[in-house]
Amino acid sequence: MKKFMNDVDQAENEMILGLVKAYPKDLRKLDCGNVVVRRNKKENKVALISGGGSGHEPAHAGYVGTGMLDAAVAGAVFTSPTPDQIYEGIKAIANDAGVLMVIKNYTGDVMNFEMAAEMAEADGILVKQVIVNDDVAVKDSLYTVGRRGVAGTVFVHKIAGAAAERGDDLGQVQETANKVIANVRTMGAAIRPCTVPAAGKPGFELAEDEMEVGIGIHGEPGTHREKIKTANEIVDLLLDKILSDIDYEGSEVAVMVNGSGATPLMELFIINNRVSDVLKEKGISVYKTYVGEYMTSIEMEGFSVSLLKLDAQLKSLLDEKADTPAWKA
Amino acid sequence: MKKFMNDVDQAENEMILGLVKAYPKDLRKLDCGNVVVRRNKKENKVALISGGGSGHEPAHAGYVGTGMLDAAVAGAVFTSPTPDQIYEGIKAIANDAGVLMVIKNYTGDVMNFEMAAEMAEADGILVKQVIVNDDVAVKDSLYTVGRRGVAGTVFVHKIAGAAAERGDDLGQVQETANKVIANVRTMGAAIRPCTVPAAGKPGFELAEDEMEVGIGIHGEPGTHREKIKTANEIVDLLLDKILSDIDYEGSEVAVMVNGSGATPLMELFIINNRVSDVLKEKGISVYKTYVGEYMTSIEMEGFSVSLLKLDAQLKSLLDEKADTPAWKA
Repeated sequence: MKKFMNDVDQAENEMILGLVKAYPKDLRKLDCGNVVVRRNKKENKVALISGGGSGHEPAHAGYVGTGMLDAAVAGAVFTSPTPDQIYEGIKAIANDAGVLMVIKNYTGDVMNFEMAAEMAEADGILVKQVIVNDDVAVKDSLYTVGRRGVAGTVFVHKIAGAAAERGDDLGQVQETANKVIANVRTMGAAIRPCTVPAAGKPGFELAEDEMEVGIGIHGEPGTHREKIKTANEIVDLLLDKILSDIDYEGSEVAVMVNGSGATPLMELFIINNRVSDVLKEKGISVYKTYVGEYMTSIEMEGFSVSLLKLDAQLKSLLDEKADTPAWKA
Repeated sequence: MKKFMNDVDQAENEMILGLVKAYPKDLRKLDCGNVVVRRNKKENKVALISGGGSGHEPAHAGYVGTGMLDAAVAGAVFTSPTPDQIYEGIKAIANDAGVLMVIKNYTGDVMNFEMAAEMAEADGILVKQVIVNDDVAVKDSLYTVGRRGVAGTVFVHKIAGAAAERGDDLGQVQETANKVIANVRTMGAAIRPCTVPAAGKPGFELAEDEMEVGIGIHGEPGTHREKIKTANEIVDLLLDKILSDIDYEGSEVAVMVNGSGATPLMELFIINNRVSDVLKEKGISVYKTYVGEYMTSIEMEGFSVSLLKLDAQLKSLLDEKADTPAWKA
């Protein structure tokens, strides 16, 4: 295994330290573990917490800041954070307005976040949750009952974060987050695997002419493997499935073309060229486009496309200012 | 070769189209080639143009926008743009305040930008240039007489761009750009090569336990190869050379930890953790830190560290607002 690392057991910790040292005025790390908390939080606003296994950087700690998350909890690579960790994160940001947990739909994450919420509620902290399940590739999967939560989660951070920042109450922020979840769909594909540091070898293998369609963000299987196609053909495959899942016709959307970690930006823009053309053909209007690495899988070479169907409320919240390490605008 | 592409010959063109379609209100592509121009340019300000071979995305087209570049010219992958292309870019942005060309120090780039400038001057356009040569690794190299221009170039875009945006004249903007160049130093290392699409195979090979120290942004040789070390040891190697090149003691710096394309953000933050600690030990104060992909080498797995020594003027220009696809703040 060839990586820029020191001690594999310290990778998550050193990563979080390196992040916080890059943004010392904006972020702090809790002493009790890999929990990143926003400095200078507005008082009396709903606090947002998210997190999950590490290896998806900049998710989630890169979205801690003005207009997005108040805390992010980082488990070991591809491993749910513990209930204790999450509980510490909740306590660090809790106030009378309550806490919303944004959870990606993986069995371990849901269980541990819910346990943490129970611990916090025993302290009198008001906690609600939403569960993101935007991946249309597979219904159930290796780590999931129901659909997986993938890159669309970042739209939930952005939009629910903006709602909280402008002063919506906990019920409203939860409702807005659920509206994003109801309207965002994602699907991905990959051509090269990633290596979990503690495992030391790739999580799966693909032949030199093969791709995995509908792959998950931990490299878990998607719908099928087939011979690699052109970028345009792969985009068409993914969009077919996304567009048949909810009715986007005549609507405005936000597009996210998300790289899995090792996909050159050149290729992501080639992909967006096709996404943009197909949506135009289908009469779907693009309100905003995001191309880059938002929810990665260490150094997997792959990408996903997310489409978020917008209305006036979601557009206005998407347009609100955010200022975090990985999302500014 | 496994890439998300359609026609290799169309890769640069489709990439630029995909970029412009992601930011249709901010960017446009010239009909005559892969030249990206800023929409809504302020009138009568010095216009900045940069560019070079493709494969370094988001450099340079990702830095076209408010407070940075007015145009970026994209050659074929790792190949200088032609004088004609550059000339079209200059004409598209020229006004009475003149044009500053920001050129990375590669023989082909310098020659072609200078030829384009001569063509523009024959039209009565005022053109000046600066040449960026921030890479301390090697004195001369495969494509260079003198040092190579690498990630530090992005600081030139940012700071000279801010100077132009606030209304400095051509001589002042050039002087400010040269001040950045005099004060920025960079060095990198890599553990995995990249594949130029048209070549179809990696540009070099490294054994499973080897790294290239001082590598260039086209994968060209650095100072030497040696067995891969820990992240901290590699950072120390690079910083030793950077810090011995100019005197940073007691000064404030901007830090850029730049990924080469396939390096996980997790590892870049682990790297920044060490960079931050070493600078603290040496009494060098970090004013701002940038961690991410700023000047890549397709899917090379590597990174570089840049240190820009700041004074009050450079700090204030670095702090000015910029709004481009790849640099906001």
